[in-house]
Amino acid sequence: MAALERPLLLTQGDPAGIGPELTLQAWLQRDKIGLPPFAVLANPAHLEQVASALGWTVPVASVGVPQIASIFPHALPVIPLKASVSAQAGRPDPTGAASVIESIETAVHLVRNGEASALVTNPIAKHVLYEAGFRHPGHTEFLAALASEDGNSYHPVMMLWSEELAVVPVTVHIPLASVPAALTTELILLTGRIVARELKDRFGIANPRLAFAGLNPHAGENGAMGSEDQVVIAPAVTALQAEGIAAFGPLPADTMFHTRARKAYDAALAMYHDQALIPIKTIAFDEGVNVTLGLPFVRTSPDHGTAFDIAGKGIARPDSLMAAIKLAARLGAKSP
Amino acid sequence: MAALERPLLLTQGDPAGIGPELTLQAWLQRDKIGLPPFAVLANPAHLEQVASALGWTVPVASVGVPQIASIFPHALPVIPLKASVSAQAGRPDPTGAASVIESIETAVHLVRNGEASALVTNPIAKHVLYEAGFRHPGHTEFLAALASEDGNSYHPVMMLWSEELAVVPVTVHIPLASVPAALTTELILLTGRIVARELKDRFGIANPRLAFAGLNPHAGENGAMGSEDQVVIAPAVTALQAEGIAAFGPLPADTMFHTRARKAYDAALAMYHDQALIPIKTIAFDEGVNVTLGLPFVRTSPDHGTAFDIAGKGIARPDSLMAAIKLAARLGAKSP
Repeated sequence: MAALERPLLLTQGDPAGIGPELTLQAWLQRDKIGLPPFAVLANPAHLEQVASALGWTVPVASVGVPQIASIFPHALPVIPLKASVSAQAGRPDPTGAASVIESIETAVHLVRNGEASALVTNPIAKHVLYEAGFRHPGHTEFLAALASEDGNSYHPVMMLWSEELAVVPVTVHIPLASVPAALTTELILLTGRIVARELKDRFGIANPRLAFAGLNPHAGENGAMGSEDQVVIAPAVTALQAEGIAAFGPLPADTMFHTRARKAYDAALAMYHDQALIPIKTIAFDEGVNVTLGLPFVRTSPDHGTAFDIAGKGIARPDSLMAAIKLAARLGAKSP
Repeated sequence: MAALERPLLLTQGDPAGIGPELTLQAWLQRDKIGLPPFAVLANPAHLEQVASALGWTVPVASVGVPQIASIFPHALPVIPLKASVSAQAGRPDPTGAASVIESIETAVHLVRNGEASALVTNPIAKHVLYEAGFRHPGHTEFLAALASEDGNSYHPVMMLWSEELAVVPVTVHIPLASVPAALTTELILLTGRIVARELKDRFGIANPRLAFAGLNPHAGENGAMGSEDQVVIAPAVTALQAEGIAAFGPLPADTMFHTRARKAYDAALAMYHDQALIPIKTIAFDEGVNVTLGLPFVRTSPDHGTAFDIAGKGIARPDSLMAAIKLAARLGAKSP
C-alpha cells in the first residue's frame, strides 16, 4: 500500500478527558478543513455515549484497518478495544487505564507493521495511569519503550510545531534550577542531530536551518552574564556545523522569535521548557502541535492535556488536534 | 506651567550610535504620528553633521527650555551641551563620554526642577563610558543615583511596555543559574508594589491587575518540578492581595502571554530576563518601550542598544524611540 493511502490512527487518550469529544469534533469538521481518513482506537459504545450526551450526530462504525478509508466519509471509524470503558466525562478513573494503554500499544503495533502511516495521540493523565500500575515517566517515554521492542534504543525529542514557528526544548520537564547542570554539549548535539535528520527526512527540508538559543540573558554577552553559552552551547553548534548541518547561535533568546527573525531558521532549539514554549504558545496558542522526533514512526499530539475541568461540555477547542492530524498526515506521507 | 505644556527631553545617548539619527527621524515624523514637542540635549553641530551625512533636511535650533514648544514645529530644538562631541558614526570613542554623561545629568536636573515633564533616554554603551571612568552598573542605576541626590533611596524597576503587553522582569541581567537564589519573596513583593503604584499613578489604571509567572515549567505543577513557585512566589502574591492589590499567580509562564490570556492583566511580572522579554519582543519587536518605574520622574527609552554596526546608515528603525516619546508624554502628563 502506498504511504499516502495508509490511514492515520488516533489513540483514545483518557476516556474521561476531552480526547473523545475532540475526536468527534475533528470527524465532524473533516470536510471543512480537509482532514485525511483516520480511525480511533477506542470503545465504539463509549464514543456514541459521548456524542449523544453532547447532542452531536456522529455515526460510529467498528472497523478494521482496511475499511477506514471507505467508511470515513460516512462514519467515524473506530477500531474496537478489548478493554471495557465506562468513563464519566471529567471524572478521572483508574479503571479506564487498561483501555488507555491498549489503545496506545495497538496503535504503535499497527504503525510499525506499516498498516497505518502515523499516530496521533490524545492526551492521557499520568497520575490516573500510575494508580493502575503504569510505570513509565510519561506518554512519550512509553512510546519510546514500545518502539525499543525492536532491539534499538531511541531518544525521543519533543518539538512544538505550528505554521509560524517550530521549537524544540533541549531540556523539558525539570525545575529551572536544574537546567544549567542538565544542559551538556552532548545533549545539545544529540538533539540537534535528531532535529536536523527529521526535518530533512520527514518534513522534506533539504538543508534544515537550526537556530540555537543562548541560556543566559543576551546569550551571556560574551561571558559577562554566565558562561554556558560559550562553554556548553557554542561547541555543540560548532560540532553540528562540522557535520554539515546549518546550525547557528547561540542567539539572545528574546530577539529570535519575532516575525522577521523566524524567517532565518526552520527550527529553534531552546535550552529549557519555557524558553521554547513561551514563544510558540504566545503566537500559536490554539494551533500548536506536539511532534515527537527520534522515534521510528510519526507521532503527533495536540498541545494540551486532558482538561478534565471542561470535559464533556463540548467547549474544548479541537484546533490543536486537527492541526496534529494534518501534520501527521503530511509527515506520514513522507515516511518509509 | 501645567503638566501637559511642559516639553519632553531626549538625552543624546552615545553620539556614535544610532541615537542621533533616530532623534532626527522622530522629529521628521513628528506630524505623521503626532509626537508632542521635545528637545534633545546634544551638540547642535554634531546633529547637523549626522543629518547632512545622511542627506536629510533637518533644521536644528539651539534653544532653552522655554522655546521648545514654539520652535518644535519648524526645527529640532537642541539644548546645547558644554562638552564637545566629535563622534564618527559606528566608532565608539571614550572622548564622547563627557557629553553622554552631561546630557543625562542635565536632563534629570531639568525634569526634577519641573521644567520638563519626562525623560526619554537614547541608548548608551556602558563599556565606552567605563573606559572614561564611569562607575555605575548601567544607565538606569546612574539615573537612580542622580535621583537619590534628594536624600531618598530608589529601587528602579524595568518595565517593557507595548500596546499589547507590559512585562516586568523581577530579576534582570544575571546568569540564569543565579536566578533561583536571587529570587526572594521580598524582592517580588517590592517589585509588585512599585508596579501596582505606578500603573495607578502614572498609567491611570484605577485597580491594576498583576499576573505573576511561575519560575518552573507549569509553575512547578504543585511542587513536582521545583518548589519556588509555592515557597517563594505564592507568598508574595498573597501578601500583595492582603494589601489590596489585584495580584494573581503564579501562573504557568507558557500559557499566560497569548492574546486571550493577556486580557486578564495590566502587567505580567516575570521571574527572569528571557521569561519577560521573549513574549514582548516576539509580539512587539519594533514598538517595545523600556519604562523605568520606581524613580521620582518619568523615564522611557527605546528597547534597543546603540547598534554601532548600523549607525550612520540611516536604516535603524525609529519605531521604538517614537513609541518611547509617545509613552513618556502620556505618563508625564499624569505626573505631579
